[in-house]
Amino acid sequence: MTFSAADHAAMARALQLAAQGLNTTSPNPRVGCVLVRDGAVASEGWHHRAGEPHAEIHALRQAGAGARGATAYVTLEPCSHFGLTPPCADALIAAGVARVVAAMEDPNPLVAGRGMARLRAAGIITEHGLLESEARELNIGFASRMTRGRPWLRLKLAATLDGKTALENGVSQWITGPEARRDGHVWRARACAILTGIGTVKADDPQLNVRELPCERQPLRILLDARLEVSDSARIMQGDPILIATASTDTERIARLSAAGHRVLVLPNAAGKVDLQGLMSTLGSLGLNEVHAEAGFKLNGSLLRAGCVDELLLYLAPMLVGDAANGLFNLAPLARLEDATRLDIHDLRQVGRDIRILARCISA
Amino acid sequence: MTFSAADHAAMARALQLAAQGLNTTSPNPRVGCVLVRDGAVASEGWHHRAGEPHAEIHALRQAGAGARGATAYVTLEPCSHFGLTPPCADALIAAGVARVVAAMEDPNPLVAGRGMARLRAAGIITEHGLLESEARELNIGFASRMTRGRPWLRLKLAATLDGKTALENGVSQWITGPEARRDGHVWRARACAILTGIGTVKADDPQLNVRELPCERQPLRILLDARLEVSDSARIMQGDPILIATASTDTERIARLSAAGHRVLVLPNAAGKVDLQGLMSTLGSLGLNEVHAEAGFKLNGSLLRAGCVDELLLYLAPMLVGDAANGLFNLAPLARLEDATRLDIHDLRQVGRDIRILARCISA
Repeated sequence: MTFSAADHAAMARALQLAAQGLNTTSPNPRVGCVLVRDGAVASEGWHHRAGEPHAEIHALRQAGAGARGATAYVTLEPCSHFGLTPPCADALIAAGVARVVAAMEDPNPLVAGRGMARLRAAGIITEHGLLESEARELNIGFASRMTRGRPWLRLKLAATLDGKTALENGVSQWITGPEARRDGHVWRARACAILTGIGTVKADDPQLNVRELPCERQPLRILLDARLEVSDSARIMQGDPILIATASTDTERIARLSAAGHRVLVLPNAAGKVDLQGLMSTLGSLGLNEVHAEAGFKLNGSLLRAGCVDELLLYLAPMLVGDAANGLFNLAPLARLEDATRLDIHDLRQVGRDIRILARCISA
Repeated sequence: MTFSAADHAAMARALQLAAQGLNTTSPNPRVGCVLVRDGAVASEGWHHRAGEPHAEIHALRQAGAGARGATAYVTLEPCSHFGLTPPCADALIAAGVARVVAAMEDPNPLVAGRGMARLRAAGIITEHGLLESEARELNIGFASRMTRGRPWLRLKLAATLDGKTALENGVSQWITGPEARRDGHVWRARACAILTGIGTVKADDPQLNVRELPCERQPLRILLDARLEVSDSARIMQGDPILIATASTDTERIARLSAAGHRVLVLPNAAGKVDLQGLMSTLGSLGLNEVHAEAGFKLNGSLLRAGCVDELLLYLAPMLVGDAANGLFNLAPLARLEDATRLDIHDLRQVGRDIRILARCISA
């Protein structure tokens, strides 16, 4: 399959449009659509939020009769099933579109190709694979949920150049600069949920919401609290109800938290801690695509050991504090470097005076 | 002072030429020269090594009569004194050059401006400050020696993303990939000397020379060995004689090392260790511009605490090994983040699969 420069330009625009839904479409994917007829853009659309029209429908409505004979560029294969809205494939057929180019097929292997097949059966030319890797990046969490049944877990960390998150005495605030902190909120905003542990709540009492940029839809807050130690006065307990994952069977406390609107998941493992793999599956079944974790030394290590971490969002502040200070990951000593957790650098840049590293774990 | 686009282009070329002497000019600075007449490049030159002609002389010889009326672009103010070669200012005057543009004045505050003054006194138009910061970077070590009487110390480190240089059991080889290792040798090659400590010699037995690229002039090797513990069979003791800095007064051992061609500096401090500040001054007086240090946890910490480190060349391998592993810097615990060593990120890039960070210490 080869695509023309015009095809690339139209799909690049569709990806830009899709990205406008970065912070709002969940649990749906971010999708953009551009209709091109006679070499000119006839209309554009993008999916805003679940329950509202899909990208294709926005573009078709805007084009009206202009959609007839057009090429539709969509960043994701059009749907062929009735969900909260009717199937987009049918709408494209009804509008008389001549050709549909999808950046990627539906990531769900059980439905991938069905939308395209429905279009082809109606005599529409279908192609896919144009700017596919960009499209996959945009919906990395949705694809994770569709293919693995669990969210994409991005672990945010802030440390010094020598890998320290706090001094020995616990002082940790403001290691990174204001630009990095704001950037961290940009990443929070796109996530479906922000996850932390009881250790961080006790130490830093975070609000765990998006404050540094406008935010239509605050992510769900998730607290890992194996023994239900969280205080009702903790800042995370204020505002919208949260999700608490615990290993506790204190039914009275659970009932009280539930009565206050919080959702409590009791997921104990054999060691009396929260079953992290089980939690990830549950979060997937709740429709969470991307989970943004901000935790401490212990939970960072536990998430990594449990194989739950998909990527690190690591901010390094240009300072050195020495080896007495607190490290990033609580992991058992390794005997061989071959046993280290390996990653790939996916993105590297300066944010203000700090360094930002996006590194992906290489699955074994 | 404003410079034209043609001025910029000529000086940029002169800087390129100067950089050809990156690994060979020491203790002299790296200098390039371009002669331009009637809008065209008449000749080019760069300084190869001490004792050989300066950049200006190479360019003047190549231009011959074509130098008359030309503009000379030099990356460093022409010298006005007799050193190993006669003053370049006189040669420029004799050749009838009309204008001299220098990127920077001589960094030695005691002689800065004298070369330009000599040219002006002969009726030549003189200007400076064109691409000055680039010129300063190129001779950062020479400028350090001229202004501070000590070399520029670049500390090379290789660690994991979580700031670890080795496992708890000491396993450290091959943390970074082949591209980073080769890049490290590129930095070694430009240094006047490569410095390490007895701890690293005992643990890793390095050769401490340049092997991954062609090298006309191997850097001097410097070993910090407070108690003269180094074994005669250590790899660093083979090949060219080395410089050993010690706090030992074992005259017999010192005599034996000296007889073998090694140079022994006895620089004890009150604590019985090597006086690092004193060592830096001595290295400056020996004509060393850039010193490349590759040491371990202890010496890294000592150099940093003594204020001897000017910049870090930090390679981070995309792996995590956990907090039990060995850290980068042995520093006393800090009570306040305000007491951390602060740096500025000067350069950031990927080298192979690893990250390379060049960070400069902000002097207090």
